[in-house]
Amino acid sequence: MNPPLLGQEMWALLADLYPICRSITGDGVRATLRRLQAHVPLTIHEVPTGTSVFDWSVPKEWNIRDAYVKDSRGTRVIDFRESNLHVISYSVPVRRRMALAELKGHLFTLPEHPDWIPNRTSYYDESWGFCLRHTRLLELEDGDYDVCIDSSLEDGNLTYGEYYVPGSSTDEVLFSAHVCHPSLANDNLSGIVVAAFLAKHLPPPPRRYSYRFLFAPATIGALTWLHFNESRLPRIRHGLVFTCLGDAGGHTYKQSRRGDAEIDRAVKVTLRDQGTPHRIVPFAPSGYDERQFCSPGFNLPVGCLMRSPQYPEYHTSADDLDLVQPQALGASLATCLEVIDVLEHDRRYMNQSPYGEPQLGRRGLYHLRERGGPTAAELLAIKWVLNLSDGKHSLLDIAERSGCQFRYVKTATAALVDSGLLKEA
Amino acid sequence: MNPPLLGQEMWALLADLYPICRSITGDGVRATLRRLQAHVPLTIHEVPTGTSVFDWSVPKEWNIRDAYVKDSRGTRVIDFRESNLHVISYSVPVRRRMALAELKGHLFTLPEHPDWIPNRTSYYDESWGFCLRHTRLLELEDGDYDVCIDSSLEDGNLTYGEYYVPGSSTDEVLFSAHVCHPSLANDNLSGIVVAAFLAKHLPPPPRRYSYRFLFAPATIGALTWLHFNESRLPRIRHGLVFTCLGDAGGHTYKQSRRGDAEIDRAVKVTLRDQGTPHRIVPFAPSGYDERQFCSPGFNLPVGCLMRSPQYPEYHTSADDLDLVQPQALGASLATCLEVIDVLEHDRRYMNQSPYGEPQLGRRGLYHLRERGGPTAAELLAIKWVLNLSDGKHSLLDIAERSGCQFRYVKTATAALVDSGLLKEA
Amino acid sequence: MNPPLLGQEMWALLADLYPICRSITGDGVRATLRRLQAHVPLTIHEVPTGTSVFDWSVPKEWNIRDAYVKDSRGTRVIDFRESNLHVISYSVPVRRRMALAELKGHLFTLPEHPDWIPNRTSYYDESWGFCLRHTRLLELEDGDYDVCIDSSLEDGNLTYGEYYVPGSSTDEVLFSAHVCHPSLANDNLSGIVVAAFLAKHLPPPPRRYSYRFLFAPATIGALTWLHFNESRLPRIRHGLVFTCLGDAGGHTYKQSRRGDAEIDRAVKVTLRDQGTPHRIVPFAPSGYDERQFCSPGFNLPVGCLMRSPQYPEYHTSADDLDLVQPQALGASLATCLEVIDVLEHDRRYMNQSPYGEPQLGRRGLYHLRERGGPTAAELLAIKWVLNLSDGKHSLLDIAERSGCQFRYVKTATAALVDSGLLKEA
Repeated sequence: MNPPLLGQEMWALLADLYPICRSITGDGVRATLRRLQAHVPLTIHEVPTGTSVFDWSVPKEWNIRDAYVKDSRGTRVIDFRESNLHVISYSVPVRRRMALAELKGHLFTLPEHPDWIPNRTSYYDESWGFCLRHTRLLELEDGDYDVCIDSSLEDGNLTYGEYYVPGSSTDEVLFSAHVCHPSLANDNLSGIVVAAFLAKHLPPPPRRYSYRFLFAPATIGALTWLHFNESRLPRIRHGLVFTCLGDAGGHTYKQSRRGDAEIDRAVKVTLRDQGTPHRIVPFAPSGYDERQFCSPGFNLPVGCLMRSPQYPEYHTSADDLDLVQPQALGASLATCLEVIDVLEHDRRYMNQSPYGEPQLGRRGLYHLRERGGPTAAELLAIKWVLNLSDGKHSLLDIAERSGCQFRYVKTATAALVDSGLLKEA
Repeated sequence: MNPPLLGQEMWALLADLYPICRSITGDGVRATLRRLQAHVPLTIHEVPTGTSVFDWSVPKEWNIRDAYVKDSRGTRVIDFRESNLHVISYSVPVRRRMALAELKGHLFTLPEHPDWIPNRTSYYDESWGFCLRHTRLLELEDGDYDVCIDSSLEDGNLTYGEYYVPGSSTDEVLFSAHVCHPSLANDNLSGIVVAAFLAKHLPPPPRRYSYRFLFAPATIGALTWLHFNESRLPRIRHGLVFTCLGDAGGHTYKQSRRGDAEIDRAVKVTLRDQGTPHRIVPFAPSGYDERQFCSPGFNLPVGCLMRSPQYPEYHTSADDLDLVQPQALGASLATCLEVIDVLEHDRRYMNQSPYGEPQLGRRGLYHLRERGGPTAAELLAIKWVLNLSDGKHSLLDIAERSGCQFRYVKTATAALVDSGLLKEA
Repeated sequence: MNPPLLGQEMWALLADLYPICRSITGDGVRATLRRLQAHVPLTIHEVPTGTSVFDWSVPKEWNIRDAYVKDSRGTRVIDFRESNLHVISYSVPVRRRMALAELKGHLFTLPEHPDWIPNRTSYYDESWGFCLRHTRLLELEDGDYDVCIDSSLEDGNLTYGEYYVPGSSTDEVLFSAHVCHPSLANDNLSGIVVAAFLAKHLPPPPRRYSYRFLFAPATIGALTWLHFNESRLPRIRHGLVFTCLGDAGGHTYKQSRRGDAEIDRAVKVTLRDQGTPHRIVPFAPSGYDERQFCSPGFNLPVGCLMRSPQYPEYHTSADDLDLVQPQALGASLATCLEVIDVLEHDRRYMNQSPYGEPQLGRRGLYHLRERGGPTAAELLAIKWVLNLSDGKHSLLDIAERSGCQFRYVKTATAALVDSGLLKEA
């Protein structure tokens, strides 16, 4: 695992996916999942329009070929071919001439960021519209305009991808990224790319847990997956939603609704051990698909790993390839692998010599520092693991209480198991 | 409810009650309660001297007509008619001539505030004395003085008032104010006036709780009420002692002995939502009648709502009408009504669509902001109420955890009940 | 108890013990314990080499008569007679001539403190060596040196001392100090001296608890005592390890592994009441013999009372008589006695008049301040003790929750018991 090198590869995949016009259904999602199949053997599911999923039903499938607004000289003053953000996602087909006054009722801009195109959707309210730079809006002259949205909104399918890696047990770790955003780099694509590379670079077997990677459109996609997998949900022991993992900010971890789930504690210790600035924020029912996984009927132990959760470029054309850094993508992947390392190794052990300290010296565990043995940090971890391995404390508990880095707790545990002083509880 | 206007009315009542010479028994209490009857249909109880109440017994009744100290020229150098604080409450009758040296053993001043008359009592230790300005004491010349306290201390009654408003259940909310202080405006009268106006301005029925308002002398009055109502005490679900509610300071809430009772949390959220400076202080067995309600045998969930709990003018003649502001009285009343609003509405609900988020859009609950619907704060409250309405969280729990104002949690709940998404648990 | 005077006596004992060359076995320990017998009727135990104690066995006994390194002119350039720190403890006998280059492999200094001799041991790894000032090392010229360590390492005994003072119950308080350090004043001797004087100055009987004082070599001594007293361990209700109690720093208390044991809370309240700077630090499995007492198989409620836990002179010749102050020794003793006072008096009582406040005045408990009765602090403590004496709160609980000093809680309790208002639960 070479994070800088992988960061470059991740950025290349992200750049490859960037131009595709995705929405919650349609060929953009299919194209995205197919490209991911070059990296991960995804299973692709198609769920027909009208399928009931809890309180919702799968919507019509939306596809778009072209869209524009032409002025009286025939010039495309708004052109889908320039940016797929120009069209409101799920806009119904339109082919009309209208005066600027009427057209303006369908145009949306960001006056406070006049050079950015906003991103808008209208999934469940049939309408149409264009998003554009505010500077462009100001340039539009009175007169008639030809409006064309060459889209289709018809019965079809909702598409999602899934990759399941069986482990030693059927207990699962779920990683989920949404795949419904058009050309937005950090919110969406960074999460997809981190999930895909994590699937490619899982630690080698044997693995304690099975791993499931879900690439689905936000909300309706997550709900659809939950609907078809209700019987499997009790197996989900831990989970993370991935998004906004490519910007230059430090990590932000949003806790699961439970707040003290093992995943919450594992991420907290991982970020603590990294020693770099980060934020742990409590669950709130706004955000990404953790809203669905953490709804009260499911209440799954699923948090959300991000870097900057709020940034000015969010849901605008400025969330582009420049915002996303290879280094940040690689480091995000490394963080995920560290979290997995905690989850894989967080077990309880019993000190086999619990009355007083065992004699470390005659087992080569003490004073070894001077002879290339454990460092001071490892030696301290050895003492903590022995002291707290009473059947009540897991390695994560020990890392939390002792302040020792999890990696030292883990290597200390391995050394103690080798010496016979520790057995799994 | 117009707090500023009511504040003026409250101040007028307070000014009307101010001149009366009250003590823990006697005609001053009766006169006070009779004037309150113009606002609230109080029941007035008379409890005979000698009645046993727990560790105490009702004392003799004390009344006073006049009192003075005259110098050798016949001039009243201390005159009860000027201020009823001049006489120590419960002073026994005196009619003697004595030299200044002997008199001084019965004179009390505040050298650090030479222009203020202190307030003193001697309820359970038969004696007599005068309180006066230190400046006046310094003016007294050697010589003989005629001392007169035209009081009576005889078998009679202890008087208290009570007003009970039945609600949908016999579970009660108790509000209590002491009525035993003479001309002191903030400590005592402000609490009486807030309680009286709260009784007048309860929210319209149906009301979940029954409400009881108690106007009784401090300590012995509260104990007497507790004595005669022991069988009713299990009905008291919440309670507040009112005092010092008219000064310009922010609110101070002193928690019940339990510390985490619903009343403690309701007041805390109310003050948090007001967004103005305030203090929450833990219970201590000093203060007002919460000492009796929170004694270990009762341990009732009763806190104490104040503004400034300690102020230089406390128990002196400077605790006068100037210290009390109509605006503060009105705002204190508003606070009490907000606390009642929390108590009345703090119930548990069940999300009827707990698997994933329900589709708010088709119920007109989402994106309504742009069309005059819920504000962002209400929409967030809708999401929180849905997420936490799992039968374990009450609306107060939700307001606490989410940080949403209780009023938004309440209106969100109403909208969700209307839409069928929520039912009372 | 006169702490300043006792501090002088304690310092004198410490100075008397200072020159002895102690180790984990041998005549130095015996000489130390014999001198302590002049103060405390210690029982001295001898445990043979090879005795199994948990994961360890009692090592060979080490004694030393002389040691030196002589240069070619016959001058002792390193001389055990100057400081017993010059020889690594448990050095095997040596009598050889060798070149400086070879000798240097056995010489240890502190380059960062060139005038201090470090303290080193090699208990479980047969070797030999000398510690010296770095300045002296630099002076050594090339050439041959005569090396002599006139020590013995043979089957013998491990020696420890014990003093048991029976109380009203067989529940025990354990105080432990290690006795294995050579001429180091603060780390070791200060703890020994505080323990000895505490044994001499226990409060007069009747005492609720039995008290046990243990003077044993670190680690192996504590383990040996634990081994021979396993059946008695359930009697240990509270315990403290004493060390580093003579320097000028404020107290540091290291909590037991439990963290919330009564001893942890008693020491915390005692230090809080003293009102001087101090630190409470959590348990960690490094430090002194609390490591053994708090190993997971025992998990005894034993903390460690110190002053400065880390100081530059630690384990060097600079930890000498100048570092230890009579005043600090006396004040440490006073602290220990205050902790014992809390433990002896921490009981639960029942308020016999729990309905409302009892009438303090007629029992002479109220308003007494003005007449030489309780101070305001005692009066407040009276109210707290009454309020919380519901069978669930001990006096320590009350001191913690109320913030009242334990001594006021105690005297308030005594007054209330005298008045009949309180009975032991």
